[in-house]
Amino acid sequence: MISISEALGLIDQHAARLPAAPMAALDAIGCLLAEDVASDIDSPPYDKAMMDGYAVIAADLASGVAELEVIEEITAGNVPTKTVAPSQAARIMTGAPIPEGADAVVMIELTQKLDDGRVRIEAPGISVGKNIMPRASSLACGVTVLPSGKRLRALEVGILAEVGRDQVTVIPRPRVTVLSTGDELVDVTEMPGPGRIRNSNGPMLMAQIAAAGGSAEDLGIARDVRADLSAKIARGLEADILVLSGGVSAGVLDLVPSILAEQQVTQIFHKVNLKPGKPIWFGKRDSGGKSTLVFGLPGNPVSSLVCFELFVRRAIGLLAGLTANDLRSAEVELAEPFVHRGDRPTLFPARWGDATQRTATPLAWKGSADLAAMGAADLLLQFPAGDAEYRAGDRVSAIVL
Amino acid sequence: MISISEALGLIDQHAARLPAAPMAALDAIGCLLAEDVASDIDSPPYDKAMMDGYAVIAADLASGVAELEVIEEITAGNVPTKTVAPSQAARIMTGAPIPEGADAVVMIELTQKLDDGRVRIEAPGISVGKNIMPRASSLACGVTVLPSGKRLRALEVGILAEVGRDQVTVIPRPRVTVLSTGDELVDVTEMPGPGRIRNSNGPMLMAQIAAAGGSAEDLGIARDVRADLSAKIARGLEADILVLSGGVSAGVLDLVPSILAEQQVTQIFHKVNLKPGKPIWFGKRDSGGKSTLVFGLPGNPVSSLVCFELFVRRAIGLLAGLTANDLRSAEVELAEPFVHRGDRPTLFPARWGDATQRTATPLAWKGSADLAAMGAADLLLQFPAGDAEYRAGDRVSAIVL
Repeated sequence: MISISEALGLIDQHAARLPAAPMAALDAIGCLLAEDVASDIDSPPYDKAMMDGYAVIAADLASGVAELEVIEEITAGNVPTKTVAPSQAARIMTGAPIPEGADAVVMIELTQKLDDGRVRIEAPGISVGKNIMPRASSLACGVTVLPSGKRLRALEVGILAEVGRDQVTVIPRPRVTVLSTGDELVDVTEMPGPGRIRNSNGPMLMAQIAAAGGSAEDLGIARDVRADLSAKIARGLEADILVLSGGVSAGVLDLVPSILAEQQVTQIFHKVNLKPGKPIWFGKRDSGGKSTLVFGLPGNPVSSLVCFELFVRRAIGLLAGLTANDLRSAEVELAEPFVHRGDRPTLFPARWGDATQRTATPLAWKGSADLAAMGAADLLLQFPAGDAEYRAGDRVSAIVL
Repeated sequence: MISISEALGLIDQHAARLPAAPMAALDAIGCLLAEDVASDIDSPPYDKAMMDGYAVIAADLASGVAELEVIEEITAGNVPTKTVAPSQAARIMTGAPIPEGADAVVMIELTQKLDDGRVRIEAPGISVGKNIMPRASSLACGVTVLPSGKRLRALEVGILAEVGRDQVTVIPRPRVTVLSTGDELVDVTEMPGPGRIRNSNGPMLMAQIAAAGGSAEDLGIARDVRADLSAKIARGLEADILVLSGGVSAGVLDLVPSILAEQQVTQIFHKVNLKPGKPIWFGKRDSGGKSTLVFGLPGNPVSSLVCFELFVRRAIGLLAGLTANDLRSAEVELAEPFVHRGDRPTLFPARWGDATQRTATPLAWKGSADLAAMGAADLLLQFPAGDAEYRAGDRVSAIVL
C-alpha cells in the first residue's frame, strides 16, 4: 500500500496538461491563457481627457487665472474639429480626444461660464499634460498585454476586450464523467427500499467537479451487470477523466476492475494508506493519442468526498494547466489542543477557528461513514499516522472544502 | 461628497435579501439555504456493514479464533434472508445490511475460506458492534440535517441527496443587467475608429457579476439618445440590480440621470470620496412590491472595476442573503514599506507578497486609467486620505480580486 505522497506523485506523473483550445473569453474565466495576447491598438488611441472640463494651453494659465474664448464642445465619441490657439479653450468631456494646440485639461469645477460665451478659469499650477492620458500610454500596438500562462479573471476579460478579443486560446476545463455503480443505489428522488440507498455520491461529485474547475457530465447509475457497466465505462472513457463511484473494493461483485482492464485501462495504484479513503483506485488509458485518467472512489460518501478533494481535484488542476506547486495544500494552526489516534494518516474534518481563517478547530467527529456530520466542516486536517498530542498553535496541513 | 463607509452604509440599508425560491440543488451551489431541511429517512436504513468480510456473533470469537459455517452471501443491494446462529457467519459486502443474529463484522483480510465451505477467522478482540454502522446513526427521520441560512457547497449537495432532495429552497442569485452607455463605444470585435473606444467595461462587468454570485445579463451598448437609453434602462430595471457603465459624470450629454428620474429611480447618493471611482451613482426604484437597485459606474475601466468590487459586489452579496458582517473586507500586511500620497481615500493595486497570501506588495502604478497595468494585481489595498508612510508589516484593508 502506497503513501499519500507517493499517490500524489503518481498522479502528477500521469496527469498531463490538456492541449490548448479556443474559447469565448467570458466562458474562459478561471482557465489558463495558452497564447501571448498582444494589443492590436494604441490605447488610448489619442491623447485623452481624464476630466470633464476645458482643454487649454497651460501657458495661458501661468498666472492661475484666465478668461478664454470657447471654440467648440467635444463630447466623448466626437473628434475635435478646431485647433486651440492662445487665449482659447474647448469644452471637453471625460474620454474625449484633446484638440490640436491644447496641452492640459482644467476640471469643470474650477471654471465658470461667462455671459459673453467665454469661460473664466481659476486654476493655479496647471502644468503641461495635466488631466491628459497620452496616446498608447496604456496599450501600445503589438506589445503583449497578457502572457501565456496567466489565469483569466474578470480583470483580464476587460483587458482582452480592450485589445479586441472576445475569443481566446486557453487550456480548457477538463471534461470529467461520473459513473455511480452498485445494485444498491436508487436515484435521489426515489424512496430507498430495503437494502437500497440513494445515490448521494453522484450529485456530490458533480458539484465537486464544477467547484474544482472541471466540466462535469453525469452518466447516472450502472448496475452490477457486465453489459451495462461495460457500455457506460466505454462512454465515460471518452472524457479526460472518468470518476467511478463504488465498485473498486475487494468484493465478489466488483466487476469494475476487469472491465477497465478489458478497455485498456492500466492500473497505476490501488489502495493508499489513508483514512478514510483507503480503497481508492487510479489508472489510465492511452488510446489514439488521447489519455483518460480513471479514478475509482470508494462508495462510502465521506471516503468519496475525501478522495476527490485529495486526488481527483489535483488531477483536474494539472490537466487544466496548474503545476504541482500551485496545488500545495494549505497550512493552518490548531485553535485548540487535539489528540489524534490512528494507525493510518487521517483526514479529519474541522471548522474555521476564527474569522480570518488562519486557525482551525477539529470537529467532534466519530470518524464514521457519516456525511451529515461533515456539514459543519470547513476544511479537512491531515494528521500523520500514529497517536499524537497536538497543542494549540501547532501547524497542520489542510484541504479547504 | 460622502465617505466610503457612509456609501457602504447606504447600500446596506437599501439592499434587502431577495425572496426565497425553489432551485435544483446542483444549480444552487453558493446560494444560502432558505428552509430547514430534515431527513425523510433513517440513514443508514439498517445496521450496515462498514467492511467487506463476515457478519458474525462476537461471542463466537471470544478466543480470537473460530471456524464458522457460512450460511449465505449478502451483497450490497441485497437483503439477508437467514439468521446467523452461533457458530455461523454470513459473507457480507461493504454497505450491505447486517443479518439477524450477527452483531459484528470481521474484515475479509482476517479470514480464510476452508475447503469444506466454512471460514476460518483469526481476529482477537472483536467486540459487539465492530465494523457496523447502526441504523439512523447518520440521519434520523424528521431531524434537521441542514439549517436555513447554510451556504450550499458540494458537501451539502451530497447531504441533500441523502435525504431525497434534488430541489431546494434558497435565496436565488440576484439578476443583474449591464448597460454600457456612450456614443464613443464600439463592440469588442470592432476596430475603433477615430474618437471611438471598445466597450471593455461591459464584458468585464459581466465577468465580475458572475464571480460575485450574480446572474448577469448584457443589454449591450445604448447610444446617447433619449429613446434608446430610455428603452434599455426600462428593460434593465426588470432585474434586481441595473449596472450602468458610463453616463453619470457631470457632462452635458449625460442623459442618464434624467431618464432614471423619469422611470421612478430615486437617487440615494452621487459621488463618493474615493480614488479612483469618485463619480459613482447609486439609486433605487420601488415599484409594485419589487425593488431594483441602480448603480451608475464611471466609464473609466479602472474606476469601473474598483466601484464594482467595492459597492456592487456588496449589493449582490446582500441580495443573496449575506450580512454586512460576512462582507467585511480582508486585512493583509504590507510586504514592504510604502508611501501613499493623495487627498482622497485610495484603492491601490497590489500583488500577493508571499505564497500564503498573508502579505501584499503594492504595484508600481501611476494611478492612471490604465487597465492593462492592473493585470498584475491580485488585490486592491485601501489607503486613507492624506500622505502617509507605511512600514513593512503594517496592516491594511484589502479587496481580493
